[in-house]
Amino acid sequence: MINTGLLTPGSHRAAELLDDRAVARAVLLTEAAWVAAQSRLGLVPEDIAHTCREAVDRVTLDEVSLNRLAVASEGGGNPVIPLLADYRAAVKELHGSPVAAVHKSLTSQDVMDTALALVLKAAQDSLVPDLQRTGDALAGLVETHAETVMVGRTLTQHALPISFGLKAASWLAGIDDAARDVLDRAHLSVSYGGAAGTLAAGMALCEQGGSTAETAERLFTLIGYWAEELGLAVPDQVWHTDRVPVLRVAGSLAESTAAMGRMANDVLLMSRPEMGELREPTAEGRGVSSAMPQKQNPVLSVLLKRTALAAPHLLGQVISGAAAAADERPDGGWHAEWPALRELAVLTTAAASHAAELTEGLTVNADRMAQNLREAGTGVMAERLSAALTPVLSESGGSTAKHRVQSAVREHPVDAEALAEHLTGMVIAEDAPSLPEGVNPQERDSVSAWLRQLLDPRGYLGATQQLCARAVKNHRERLIT
Amino acid sequence: MINTGLLTPGSHRAAELLDDRAVARAVLLTEAAWVAAQSRLGLVPEDIAHTCREAVDRVTLDEVSLNRLAVASEGGGNPVIPLLADYRAAVKELHGSPVAAVHKSLTSQDVMDTALALVLKAAQDSLVPDLQRTGDALAGLVETHAETVMVGRTLTQHALPISFGLKAASWLAGIDDAARDVLDRAHLSVSYGGAAGTLAAGMALCEQGGSTAETAERLFTLIGYWAEELGLAVPDQVWHTDRVPVLRVAGSLAESTAAMGRMANDVLLMSRPEMGELREPTAEGRGVSSAMPQKQNPVLSVLLKRTALAAPHLLGQVISGAAAAADERPDGGWHAEWPALRELAVLTTAAASHAAELTEGLTVNADRMAQNLREAGTGVMAERLSAALTPVLSESGGSTAKHRVQSAVREHPVDAEALAEHLTGMVIAEDAPSLPEGVNPQERDSVSAWLRQLLDPRGYLGATQQLCARAVKNHRERLIT
Amino acid sequence: MINTGLLTPGSHRAAELLDDRAVARAVLLTEAAWVAAQSRLGLVPEDIAHTCREAVDRVTLDEVSLNRLAVASEGGGNPVIPLLADYRAAVKELHGSPVAAVHKSLTSQDVMDTALALVLKAAQDSLVPDLQRTGDALAGLVETHAETVMVGRTLTQHALPISFGLKAASWLAGIDDAARDVLDRAHLSVSYGGAAGTLAAGMALCEQGGSTAETAERLFTLIGYWAEELGLAVPDQVWHTDRVPVLRVAGSLAESTAAMGRMANDVLLMSRPEMGELREPTAEGRGVSSAMPQKQNPVLSVLLKRTALAAPHLLGQVISGAAAAADERPDGGWHAEWPALRELAVLTTAAASHAAELTEGLTVNADRMAQNLREAGTGVMAERLSAALTPVLSESGGSTAKHRVQSAVREHPVDAEALAEHLTGMVIAEDAPSLPEGVNPQERDSVSAWLRQLLDPRGYLGATQQLCARAVKNHRERLIT
Amino acid sequence: MINTGLLTPGSHRAAELLDDRAVARAVLLTEAAWVAAQSRLGLVPEDIAHTCREAVDRVTLDEVSLNRLAVASEGGGNPVIPLLADYRAAVKELHGSPVAAVHKSLTSQDVMDTALALVLKAAQDSLVPDLQRTGDALAGLVETHAETVMVGRTLTQHALPISFGLKAASWLAGIDDAARDVLDRAHLSVSYGGAAGTLAAGMALCEQGGSTAETAERLFTLIGYWAEELGLAVPDQVWHTDRVPVLRVAGSLAESTAAMGRMANDVLLMSRPEMGELREPTAEGRGVSSAMPQKQNPVLSVLLKRTALAAPHLLGQVISGAAAAADERPDGGWHAEWPALRELAVLTTAAASHAAELTEGLTVNADRMAQNLREAGTGVMAERLSAALTPVLSESGGSTAKHRVQSAVREHPVDAEALAEHLTGMVIAEDAPSLPEGVNPQERDSVSAWLRQLLDPRGYLGATQQLCARAVKNHRERLIT
Repeated sequence: MINTGLLTPGSHRAAELLDDRAVARAVLLTEAAWVAAQSRLGLVPEDIAHTCREAVDRVTLDEVSLNRLAVASEGGGNPVIPLLADYRAAVKELHGSPVAAVHKSLTSQDVMDTALALVLKAAQDSLVPDLQRTGDALAGLVETHAETVMVGRTLTQHALPISFGLKAASWLAGIDDAARDVLDRAHLSVSYGGAAGTLAAGMALCEQGGSTAETAERLFTLIGYWAEELGLAVPDQVWHTDRVPVLRVAGSLAESTAAMGRMANDVLLMSRPEMGELREPTAEGRGVSSAMPQKQNPVLSVLLKRTALAAPHLLGQVISGAAAAADERPDGGWHAEWPALRELAVLTTAAASHAAELTEGLTVNADRMAQNLREAGTGVMAERLSAALTPVLSESGGSTAKHRVQSAVREHPVDAEALAEHLTGMVIAEDAPSLPEGVNPQERDSVSAWLRQLLDPRGYLGATQQLCARAVKNHRERLIT
Repeated sequence: MINTGLLTPGSHRAAELLDDRAVARAVLLTEAAWVAAQSRLGLVPEDIAHTCREAVDRVTLDEVSLNRLAVASEGGGNPVIPLLADYRAAVKELHGSPVAAVHKSLTSQDVMDTALALVLKAAQDSLVPDLQRTGDALAGLVETHAETVMVGRTLTQHALPISFGLKAASWLAGIDDAARDVLDRAHLSVSYGGAAGTLAAGMALCEQGGSTAETAERLFTLIGYWAEELGLAVPDQVWHTDRVPVLRVAGSLAESTAAMGRMANDVLLMSRPEMGELREPTAEGRGVSSAMPQKQNPVLSVLLKRTALAAPHLLGQVISGAAAAADERPDGGWHAEWPALRELAVLTTAAASHAAELTEGLTVNADRMAQNLREAGTGVMAERLSAALTPVLSESGGSTAKHRVQSAVREHPVDAEALAEHLTGMVIAEDAPSLPEGVNPQERDSVSAWLRQLLDPRGYLGATQQLCARAVKNHRERLIT
Repeated sequence: MINTGLLTPGSHRAAELLDDRAVARAVLLTEAAWVAAQSRLGLVPEDIAHTCREAVDRVTLDEVSLNRLAVASEGGGNPVIPLLADYRAAVKELHGSPVAAVHKSLTSQDVMDTALALVLKAAQDSLVPDLQRTGDALAGLVETHAETVMVGRTLTQHALPISFGLKAASWLAGIDDAARDVLDRAHLSVSYGGAAGTLAAGMALCEQGGSTAETAERLFTLIGYWAEELGLAVPDQVWHTDRVPVLRVAGSLAESTAAMGRMANDVLLMSRPEMGELREPTAEGRGVSSAMPQKQNPVLSVLLKRTALAAPHLLGQVISGAAAAADERPDGGWHAEWPALRELAVLTTAAASHAAELTEGLTVNADRMAQNLREAGTGVMAERLSAALTPVLSESGGSTAKHRVQSAVREHPVDAEALAEHLTGMVIAEDAPSLPEGVNPQERDSVSAWLRQLLDPRGYLGATQQLCARAVKNHRERLIT
Repeated sequence: MINTGLLTPGSHRAAELLDDRAVARAVLLTEAAWVAAQSRLGLVPEDIAHTCREAVDRVTLDEVSLNRLAVASEGGGNPVIPLLADYRAAVKELHGSPVAAVHKSLTSQDVMDTALALVLKAAQDSLVPDLQRTGDALAGLVETHAETVMVGRTLTQHALPISFGLKAASWLAGIDDAARDVLDRAHLSVSYGGAAGTLAAGMALCEQGGSTAETAERLFTLIGYWAEELGLAVPDQVWHTDRVPVLRVAGSLAESTAAMGRMANDVLLMSRPEMGELREPTAEGRGVSSAMPQKQNPVLSVLLKRTALAAPHLLGQVISGAAAAADERPDGGWHAEWPALRELAVLTTAAASHAAELTEGLTVNADRMAQNLREAGTGVMAERLSAALTPVLSESGGSTAKHRVQSAVREHPVDAEALAEHLTGMVIAEDAPSLPEGVNPQERDSVSAWLRQLLDPRGYLGATQQLCARAVKNHRERLIT
């Protein structure tokens, strides 16, 4: 089989980190590091460890080999056994004879889980900076556009004025939280349990005539060396069947795709021609249509939305696999985890790269935002007018103050000027209305000016500034270095 | 990226049908067939159609090319654009100049959806015979083991005697129903809509001065030729955004994986050493453990269970994508469908092959089944005893007849002989009990013989024979040829 | 626990058919029908059957009782056991003594699965007509708006002109296909297997001294009577662990929600104020906002989208449960099916009612559609111009004919008139261009008229008329009566 | 509609915390607390706040009312609007006239999200102690059974000896990690954004003539008071459309169900009669079968498995909803979150209660574990023998030392004594074998004793003791108080 990501465009951005070649190589590196660890503990001569490390690069991992290995993986139900055979052959050729320390005391799952930990670490090392870049770009948008007014929309309809900076601040909060979780949770330790999770073969390997406790101490040291060699953490427990660590990884990835996905939803909406408020960055060959030359499709957002649609199901598969674990090593549950976890990591890693590119190059059309807000009419100020005028206006003709304001708004849905005049008349007709300080109910101009000001969307942005500042501050303080 | 199925062992069985190379080739064949169709309608000289068909084989689809194509797919968000460029180049080289008929009036989605239809058809052509083989093997097991008694288990506990044939009949019913649905529903037609689903460019292509209706007639003829060239059906409607056809395919695949998966659950349980009732077929390198030479892991069932765990989520992704369709062509929903649909097809196709191999080579240990049934004790006959003796026994010491039987069973949980004697005493103590014809309440031997017969599991198989016969008959009658 | 649908607004539309009270009542009806069937076979006096039917209405199913039953369901892991106790008590009270025929030879799963079949049948009886109504309304929209032009959009951007009728035709195709599948597949038969799927107790019940085959015949007759009483079909096989029948139901429901969901996506987009092309029907209290009086939220579509987001996961749960079946009755898989299947049925049934209301009352703003198409500019005609002018124009200044057309379109993105003049100049400058019959390259007016006509979106609707007619015809022919 | 949990047996354990009545009451409490907060800021007289709190208890939330509210929820697409109307009526009745402070500046989503935060907090307050109880019980099992040997199983087959304590330690690690995540992550803050997330109405409410910053400060104080009244945290940002906080909750719940589910898988397997190693605690009416008196179904584990099958899909629905968020408040995505999140919380909360009961009452049959290990034969010691004898034995007859050991094991699969003798012969036949200190190759008895000891499973438990101790220590140190 050869799959290159043809059906998941954009996934090539994570290819080197996470494809089958990367996984296969991680298996080999895991095996070599185990020998290196034994060498550090004095169980194996140093040169053997070197030979074993060298052998990693001697194992061919081209398409033909990988296909052969994939076919051979069926026999044992996992790829470690055939990879190990190739690796042992390479070691033997370099060393002149088999090296018994290779894979000694390990079981397939130890190697497989550790190899996945290794490639996920590489993915995390790419993902976190890309989420950070995305956050940086968003923080910049928040600052630049904290006062760029636009119409806020809820349940698809015009609601109140907002600023584009506030929208970006909301995107940023999601990205930052997800990035923090990816940093804290998207990593696995080495996996070590031996054939049934008792570490029995490992204990035999480390046995030197002392007490069981001493032997265990040596074994834990050995595992610690192994982890060091690979740059991974040491686990508290055998996690062959306790898959909570895996769920933490997968969960943080799916959080990220959701955070990026909802940003993409907004970009897709706002870059529709009828909105025209945003435009994706262009690039050579990006967004082209095979049939329509005038089109510029928002492909980055399309791919982000694609990923956000897929991720809940990929996470679901990982959890269903984890929840099906049984015995000391599972009979299918474990096997269902790998491909979904890997694909989730591929898609999330690529998505973070897409998101960084998208946010760094996003074109904001402030004029169009202003125009759309104007065209949204007076309705977006109705909430404010109601709050301001309800204490001012009396009930009249069976209509409450609130209803009278609403009727006025409906009568002048577009023309703010006319609405202001209409409301001015209503206020002046009141007997001693309680107006804000400085507004004189006797002077039509004074009342009219107050109402015109009430109808200015720029004056009804609430705590937008504070929320924007807070989002940027949080982002800067939580900088992941 | 290079993925070969290393993390989905066994998937190589579907590789040639469904991998990226197969998809890419299907895209090329789709384009060539479109020119051939135009040629049949007289729009293009026949030799150009031949050249275009020949050009398919000139496009390189090795790892390097496919990787390049995958990278280039990001630009337009789908792989058709770069594949088309390669194809046009190949055509141009053969023909000496560009051929305008290539891709004329088509849009990327027309080609992509049709190419997927093509590879899915190939998958179906492999899947249906393998499900048929599985059904044939199961029908054989049903016939052979219609009277092979074993203990039936519900909610993990011993329930009543059943026959292994009946269990196989239940597996068979699921496989047969799923196979029928795969045959009826797991196929797509060609996709033709043009840039916005109006067939406008196609109408322009077919325009010859007649009425719109005449032009449309010609266009539908053209589409029909295209479908014929590819061996696919002609759709009623444009399905760019109406994805119910896709859901039918995916749904039938997931039905199959569930039917195979629950069979695998049973095999996994029954081949546990403590049960020992079934054993998977062995094969060179199959089921080996890297650490424990004595082990023979039931790898086929493990892989079937893996697939059954994955499939609901893959189907879910397809549906979520389908449900996200919008406008005349979707902005991410469509893109989320492909990889999940393809992976679902790969896993299901491979699973059918595994299931055929598993069922054809399954070893049934009838002795162990009989032994387990014996060891299950008298409890499995309690239902029968209750039904038979409740009308016979009177209430006594505050205990109903039913409770008295149950107490007797609890007193003799293992020894059927002793239980028969105990019950015989109870029956004889009754005053004129209503016993079946031929049983004499005066003769202890007669009563005892009756009770011994009641305690024979072989006599309490219900309609097992009829159900077995029916399952086999249904299978034979529904033979898919 | 009391859940009334507060968190799934709109679900009350399916409440009476599918809530816990309906399920509980279906359990009771199932039990009563079993006695009725025994009576028809002569095993039980007719008056007992009547008493048993009467007892159904004597079992209290108010909130207190249902809560008590729900609590008691934990003991056996399903609600049949406590419901049966209440039912037996009611029968006993009416009859004066217990009736042994109640539940005789049945197991909990027989009753539970059959009760679910019963409520699903009621759901189907509501669902199919509502989908039919939706289809009827859509067919009306297709006919009315077959020529109502609007801009087609792909990947969120303007593509080509379409008609709103064509869009409705695409919605209709999905609804019709889903409705057909709901009719064909969303039903279950009675479930009959006894304690371990062998029908053993049933055989004992029907035993009258004849051969096993004769007894089985009587038993199948009995099951047939039972099914008749309930208006359900008779199954071929015991489906305690073969859950393909359940997957067919659930699959057809999820198809429907996807078909309705993608229609809702379009309505949500097109009823955005910036589009203004569609408006949901209003109703008292519908779409109101607690804060903003001017708003009219498209609530029906919001709820349809909500359902479409949920359904893939509900279906996934049903399949995961089905695939986890094992032994003769499952240890958790079965239990995971019910709530998801029921919720899926509730949401789909309610959604069909929403969809009918939505489509029957949808306001189409043809003027706004026309305006949006105008404002989309000349780009939407680029495909047509390219096709028409590529054979006419020569290469010039290194630009191909196609590129020259595209440049002209980009130069005049809005003003069709100006573009026509520009292109006229280009055509006239050609030496003997091959123009369509009747266009005179020497006469500027003739060329200009031709180009103006080419730029008329109304003339580039492709086979829209034919596709619309076909969708309506299909709908009418497939009328479900 | 009335749903009481009939189709999710056991869910009544979470009913009072999370059912519709609890949600409705949380909505009312949220509104009352908002008035109380305004009172603390001096915006509203204290007695009005008291009246508003009192009014909460005046709103009828019986079945009839809740059903009416559920029906009315359709209008606005959420239940806040009708609940607010009832609440306002209750306030008005108590106060004599409407209270303007009720819901002032809030939007439906503020109230809905906060009410969900409130019920989830109650769920967490039940869930964490139950997970803690489960962990305590498991820690006890780990300590008691650290040396209770049993056969370890991998991919369903016998592997090596383990201890039951080690298995319990693995369960414990998962429960502890999940409990930690539930404690850290399964909570939400109050939700405050106003109609479009700008806090505009709130700013107007808090405006007192000072600077915007001062007003914002007052508003944040107000929000802080609100959160205090409810016992919830204050958020950094508006989370109307940033749903990462929701995903953290849902993710931690699904981790828990997976951790409990895989424990249930083991219990279900080990309590099969053929294993007989574990037995669930019994209780009145627990595990009964309607047909078979002898059965004792492991219902707690069945329900845990049910929940573990469901949870990945419920989580998936929450994430799909979250990822569909758009604009300033979502058009369906938000609505898809609630029911799935609530159901996930119900099932997880009930499951923790089930898990506590299961683990506290689990019967461990150490004799049966020992017997099963014995019956597993010599194969489980093969790994140890290979490691010990490979350096001792020479190649012979073309067989490596390893193969010779394996052959011997295969020859004596059951009889350890015979195998020891066979191997003794092989060792003695070697020329100066390198045996451990104290083993004399010249003395058959010495060699034989060594080999017998090698074949003792109790001596091959690896670091089981250390792993057990570590799990208990971790649990005790992480005690959640």
